[in-house]
Amino acid sequence: MKAAVYKGNKTFSIIERELMEPHAEEVRIKVAYTGVCGTDVHIYHGMMDKRVAIPETIGHEMSGTIDAVGEKVSDFKIGDKVVVRPLDDRKVKPSDKGFNHICEELKFIGIDSSGSMQQFWNVPAFTLHKLKPETNLRLAALIEPLSVAVHDVRLSGLKAGETAVILGGGPIGLLVALVAKQTGAQVVVSEVNDTRIAKAEELGLTAINPLKMDLVGYVKSITENRKADVVFEVAGVQATLDMMTEVAGIRGRIVMVAIHGQKKEVDLFQFFWKELKLIGVRVYEKEDYEKAIELVTENKLKFEKLITEVRPLSDIQQVFEDIDKQPDGMKILMDCQQ
Amino acid sequence: MKAAVYKGNKTFSIIERELMEPHAEEVRIKVAYTGVCGTDVHIYHGMMDKRVAIPETIGHEMSGTIDAVGEKVSDFKIGDKVVVRPLDDRKVKPSDKGFNHICEELKFIGIDSSGSMQQFWNVPAFTLHKLKPETNLRLAALIEPLSVAVHDVRLSGLKAGETAVILGGGPIGLLVALVAKQTGAQVVVSEVNDTRIAKAEELGLTAINPLKMDLVGYVKSITENRKADVVFEVAGVQATLDMMTEVAGIRGRIVMVAIHGQKKEVDLFQFFWKELKLIGVRVYEKEDYEKAIELVTENKLKFEKLITEVRPLSDIQQVFEDIDKQPDGMKILMDCQQ
Repeated sequence: MKAAVYKGNKTFSIIERELMEPHAEEVRIKVAYTGVCGTDVHIYHGMMDKRVAIPETIGHEMSGTIDAVGEKVSDFKIGDKVVVRPLDDRKVKPSDKGFNHICEELKFIGIDSSGSMQQFWNVPAFTLHKLKPETNLRLAALIEPLSVAVHDVRLSGLKAGETAVILGGGPIGLLVALVAKQTGAQVVVSEVNDTRIAKAEELGLTAINPLKMDLVGYVKSITENRKADVVFEVAGVQATLDMMTEVAGIRGRIVMVAIHGQKKEVDLFQFFWKELKLIGVRVYEKEDYEKAIELVTENKLKFEKLITEVRPLSDIQQVFEDIDKQPDGMKILMDCQQ
Repeated sequence: MKAAVYKGNKTFSIIERELMEPHAEEVRIKVAYTGVCGTDVHIYHGMMDKRVAIPETIGHEMSGTIDAVGEKVSDFKIGDKVVVRPLDDRKVKPSDKGFNHICEELKFIGIDSSGSMQQFWNVPAFTLHKLKPETNLRLAALIEPLSVAVHDVRLSGLKAGETAVILGGGPIGLLVALVAKQTGAQVVVSEVNDTRIAKAEELGLTAINPLKMDLVGYVKSITENRKADVVFEVAGVQATLDMMTEVAGIRGRIVMVAIHGQKKEVDLFQFFWKELKLIGVRVYEKEDYEKAIELVTENKLKFEKLITEVRPLSDIQQVFEDIDKQPDGMKILMDCQQ
């Protein structure tokens, strides 16, 4: 079988690897599609070379079909369509307080261990979520990032009738916007890139370019001056960090979706003045996966439009080079059987 | 009657002022004690000269007795012991979402209008909270800062059995610690000043000097490695901003009690990694005042030990100069009838 391997130095290779039988508590998945995540691009750029055991197969946004089942696995059978929730929480401790998805010794499958950018992938059965037989496997490859969005919206406490502002209209920002809108909230996406603004509009979202229009003034105009009830900071730049505290209204909740590797300047005075809340979020919990699966199964949210391209896995090197050249694209899937 | 007047340039004067009859919806209070707040010291230092209408009488931590009642006031009578909740929210708007205590047009009585550092003080009756006849008026002058602590602990969601770390052992920090302990939480105060550490211990609190002892290690040792469930950042310096994200455990809540006038560096990565929450807090709501009154009435929490000195109002200039010389003192009250 074929597997893509990250070798460091912005290089992937396609290698031939022997098909392995799953261990007793594992299954072997015939991977259908793997999406390229921002984290994968980060790895490609060498930013996580200390964490990734090079040479390594990466990838964690995927869909597939069970191809072989370990002897102790009873809940799944060959042919089941599945997605993997790539969190290995087997080393959870009491001090993690039951928050297994962010436990101190969490291993992220596809970063800390072998991932899905290969034809067949062996994973522990406890990571699996079963899909309905009719589920579209292309869309199912979006379940992992969609679960991030579901988790973020859930932890924000966003309610119908409230107004949410999403700062940053990349793949995660738009998924957050779709989920937020689906809860019955009024949603505004703030984005500076024209291609992404067009994509947001194609998805039926309201998108504003804050360089061309007064975002705070606009949000005030549609909320009778209340400003945003919830702000999602997804862009991860100083301009959006400044905007998040400005566009939030009294008792506004700000969800920190972007990952800031370094300390950043925050206007803490606004937290005092308006009694704002900042909510840190990371990955997802089981119920978020279930909700994301439900949304993909219903397929009412135009997820298809988020998939920019489907490329063969054998093109992986070119795919990552293309992403670098065109950073405003949305989600690229790789067909892992090609 | 005598009134203290702030004249700018680090100067107070005691002036003679005519006794005024209260308007229809006001009462006149014979002020018993006024505490000196950090904000008053800020005003004395000229930091708020743009906001304060110099020359002005300041002061908002007080207790007193009703001396005259306006014709439309029915809930209060001469002789009632009272405290003032110094928030003028008469310009509240729908966009304030019902959070009157932080409404956009809030006026803070004693900063934006005349305060309690005088013998007699006329205030709108809606600001009053009645005390029991037996209430000690010295302790009652602590109700305003105690309400801040009650509000902060309430918004933190602190529960019995959890662990709270208070960064900064000044008057507000120690009040927060006392209220937190009273909820049944395990409480640790982090403070670098020996006098304040001694005061914390006198109050029955555990106090740690993080320059002499590994605070995070200590908190881990008393929480089976969970670290803090709730952190109160009261000190307002970069070292405590750094510590707040370090000492908080998974899903920890950080309450931003200190007021940061400028943007500060925050370790947002920790918010992501541990799904932390930052909770902005400001002043208090009605129910916080009621709870603070209850605590002072019960008088089980050694509040008396927080009062460093009681000085005559006529000494006001010397009081503020002394505070500058001895910044590690606790609460100084001024006897407004002397």
